[in-house]
Amino acid sequence: RIMRPDDANFAGNVHGGIILKMIEEAGAIISTRHCNSQDGEPCVAALARVERTDFLSPVCIGEVANVSAEITYTSRHSVEVQVNVMSENILTGAKKVTNKATLWYVPLSLKNVNKVVEVPPIQYARKEQEEEGKKRYEEQKLDRLETKQRNGDVIFPIINPEPHTVGYSQSSLIHLVGPSDCTLLGFVHGGVTMKLMDEVAGIVAARHCKTNIVTASVDAINFHEKIKKGSVITISGRMTFTSNKSMEIEVFVDADPFVDEARERYRAVSAFFTYVSLSKEGKPLPVPQLLTETEDEKRRFEEGKGRYLQTKAKRQAQLQQAA
Amino acid sequence: RIMRPDDANFAGNVHGGIILKMIEEAGAIISTRHCNSQDGEPCVAALARVERTDFLSPVCIGEVANVSAEITYTSRHSVEVQVNVMSENILTGAKKVTNKATLWYVPLSLKNVNKVVEVPPIQYARKEQEEEGKKRYEEQKLDRLETKQRNGDVIFPIINPEPHTVGYSQSSLIHLVGPSDCTLLGFVHGGVTMKLMDEVAGIVAARHCKTNIVTASVDAINFHEKIKKGSVITISGRMTFTSNKSMEIEVFVDADPFVDEARERYRAVSAFFTYVSLSKEGKPLPVPQLLTETEDEKRRFEEGKGRYLQTKAKRQAQLQQAA
Amino acid sequence: RIMRPDDANFAGNVHGGIILKMIEEAGAIISTRHCNSQDGEPCVAALARVERTDFLSPVCIGEVANVSAEITYTSRHSVEVQVNVMSENILTGAKKVTNKATLWYVPLSLKNVNKVVEVPPIQYARKEQEEEGKKRYEEQKLDRLETKQRNGDVIFPIINPEPHTVGYSQSSLIHLVGPSDCTLLGFVHGGVTMKLMDEVAGIVAARHCKTNIVTASVDAINFHEKIKKGSVITISGRMTFTSNKSMEIEVFVDADPFVDEARERYRAVSAFFTYVSLSKEGKPLPVPQLLTETEDEKRRFEEGKGRYLQTKAKRQAQLQQAA
Repeated sequence: RIMRPDDANFAGNVHGGIILKMIEEAGAIISTRHCNSQDGEPCVAALARVERTDFLSPVCIGEVANVSAEITYTSRHSVEVQVNVMSENILTGAKKVTNKATLWYVPLSLKNVNKVVEVPPIQYARKEQEEEGKKRYEEQKLDRLETKQRNGDVIFPIINPEPHTVGYSQSSLIHLVGPSDCTLLGFVHGGVTMKLMDEVAGIVAARHCKTNIVTASVDAINFHEKIKKGSVITISGRMTFTSNKSMEIEVFVDADPFVDEARERYRAVSAFFTYVSLSKEGKPLPVPQLLTETEDEKRRFEEGKGRYLQTKAKRQAQLQQAA
Repeated sequence: RIMRPDDANFAGNVHGGIILKMIEEAGAIISTRHCNSQDGEPCVAALARVERTDFLSPVCIGEVANVSAEITYTSRHSVEVQVNVMSENILTGAKKVTNKATLWYVPLSLKNVNKVVEVPPIQYARKEQEEEGKKRYEEQKLDRLETKQRNGDVIFPIINPEPHTVGYSQSSLIHLVGPSDCTLLGFVHGGVTMKLMDEVAGIVAARHCKTNIVTASVDAINFHEKIKKGSVITISGRMTFTSNKSMEIEVFVDADPFVDEARERYRAVSAFFTYVSLSKEGKPLPVPQLLTETEDEKRRFEEGKGRYLQTKAKRQAQLQQAA
Repeated sequence: RIMRPDDANFAGNVHGGIILKMIEEAGAIISTRHCNSQDGEPCVAALARVERTDFLSPVCIGEVANVSAEITYTSRHSVEVQVNVMSENILTGAKKVTNKATLWYVPLSLKNVNKVVEVPPIQYARKEQEEEGKKRYEEQKLDRLETKQRNGDVIFPIINPEPHTVGYSQSSLIHLVGPSDCTLLGFVHGGVTMKLMDEVAGIVAARHCKTNIVTASVDAINFHEKIKKGSVITISGRMTFTSNKSMEIEVFVDADPFVDEARERYRAVSAFFTYVSLSKEGKPLPVPQLLTETEDEKRRFEEGKGRYLQTKAKRQAQLQQAA
């Protein structure tokens, strides 16, 4: 679809969250279609995980985003979808790859939302495809267990924070879940959650460096817990790490099913977003260093540095492989 | 994309206006892309006309609408686009053709919005295609001249109207044109206008028969006059004719460029929408007859009857041809 | 959240209605949460009244609006919430207080929408707080009785009105209530209604003075009657008074539950909005005087003048007290 002014920041760059929402919708359509392609229980595919995603180039107002999706692996209870986004300037005809994302969906029964139904297997063109898919499946399974551990943290507001400290830029946003945010099962679309997460992360980044910022990447996101229609969700973000030219922001989503007394507020999702600061000509700018004060902040900074160096190393390995 | 609760009425049927808006966006993308495909002045395709469109079957919440567009004819200054909409129930895999629409676009220069640029010719697979296209082009040109005549009418409100009279159901809506309603040239997307027109027509129809109603068809719509960002538009609808099972509603769009004082309020678009009333099981229901009071209302009723009988005759001729 | 182009007028000032909607959402969340905090019937807080609200400074596109809410008084069946809005320019770090609003909510049972449930009492830091709250509670109760009286008026359209007359700028808008406009109980959010009211009032003001206008204040609004999902609402506005630099607009909301035939069209809400006209530099401009023609228009002008002088006197008293 054509990108509109509301999809973009004041510099005309489309918010990463809008792209993430389109990616997730395409993934949900193709995987729900596949899971209902054989006789069996009607079901809706729910997003379980998005692999680390890089934003290769910013999209601008007036460009058309072309989204294509393909199922690349199926296990007994999950579907892996590869989604590619191309942005096209229909005036010049120029096309650019914007994103390549990998998403995992789990089909939930339309009658009983707690029941995972079986996924019809796909045909692979080559045998290695199945093996590689299985490997990716095992890897993400392990990784999902790990992230479940780090879920207890909370963000406290700081009074009169100094510029460039963690407390200075941290932000949170509340959203009341409406009907159009939800799937047929009455739970929030993963894409809606990611769009809100990107919005908060973007505010944190802009508060820190006070320039035009764009989403550079999102690390893997696991959707542990469904969020029901009518819940209030609180999305909080804080900066964890800065390199010379990038900022890492941790974002939490807490859901409060506040009318339905049976349940306490719970952590539904958490993720790391990386942002870069751009000049008016679209060139990356240096980023002010994050000032860490508490022990926890220093620890998180080191952890962020670890992730940053790991990603950098991986990318260099890929480049060398490609060369 | 997946149809949401916000796209539909309380019975779960997606508003015809949402479909029209998707159709127009697809047409605008393909024709803008085509007109910029050769070296020449950058331009944006503006909707000039939509041919009569039938809504073959209602679309429901949770279904996916697949929109495909193809350029079928080019004249020196205009592009004909054929857009097809299929609705797909991704749970059952059932697909239905929802719409087949024909739209005419005119490329306007990005630098000078009053200049129409030249359209690169397309290649035809068979020679007859070009001749048939030319015939359609000449026909719509004639038809556009004709509708320009009937543009002076205004809707006056009636105090304490009786049920089922014209005054009882007539309705109007104002809308302030925002940035997301507009193309790169700063003029309202034809699809946005059609969505608002369908909204008003639907309220007129529902007020008349007080049941669940759906758009059955829209006659040809000509976009004589552009509408600028920041204008206030008034969309007014009144019922003109009822058959046993359908209602015809005339809709006017008046634009008020109230920031730019140089220009008076003007009639931008007008069209006839046909609605049917559906039972809870989705079967067409009888419609209360429209009570006409003034001479003008009686004349418009007869004109509506003429259009109704003509359409009916055409459809039967097509059925016989097909048989 | 970040203010987007669609939230603002062509001069980049965010519509007062967008702010009112955010205020109401924050109030609804905090009071619903409070009313469900003890064992008891699950309930949803419905907006009963908003006290007079001043817009202290305009908010612009790209700024972040920070909304904070606090419960300041509870009676047996109602909750008083104080909501503050700060706008923050995240590029410069500049913050301004935009609004301080006081809202009253009543908790309605989720099972039986006609039943008001009991509100758990809050703890007061000082005893005087409870007494002051009680005084405010009694005052607004009296005021609500009063406004119920003036509810019968209707707006009739005028043919070919002269510039600056009441008929020239009066406007009305219809809106079909969709699922996203409603609470869990299926009734329109008070904030959605206020946003539409501000939209109509803004169009009336802009038609009158043909410049960039912004909301300066809203008088107390009482929500007498709930509006059900699927209703058509008509929002009408007419100018009642102009001072040198401000315009007062009266806005009515009429609901037409047209699917549910048991009920006639009824007046759901009414209120007075005050607008000012701004130059390109953001300075207040003189406003053309309203031309009154009928006896009713002259009477309403005098009443408006009374409200204007009263507000002015109150404000001066507050300034003197503060000095």
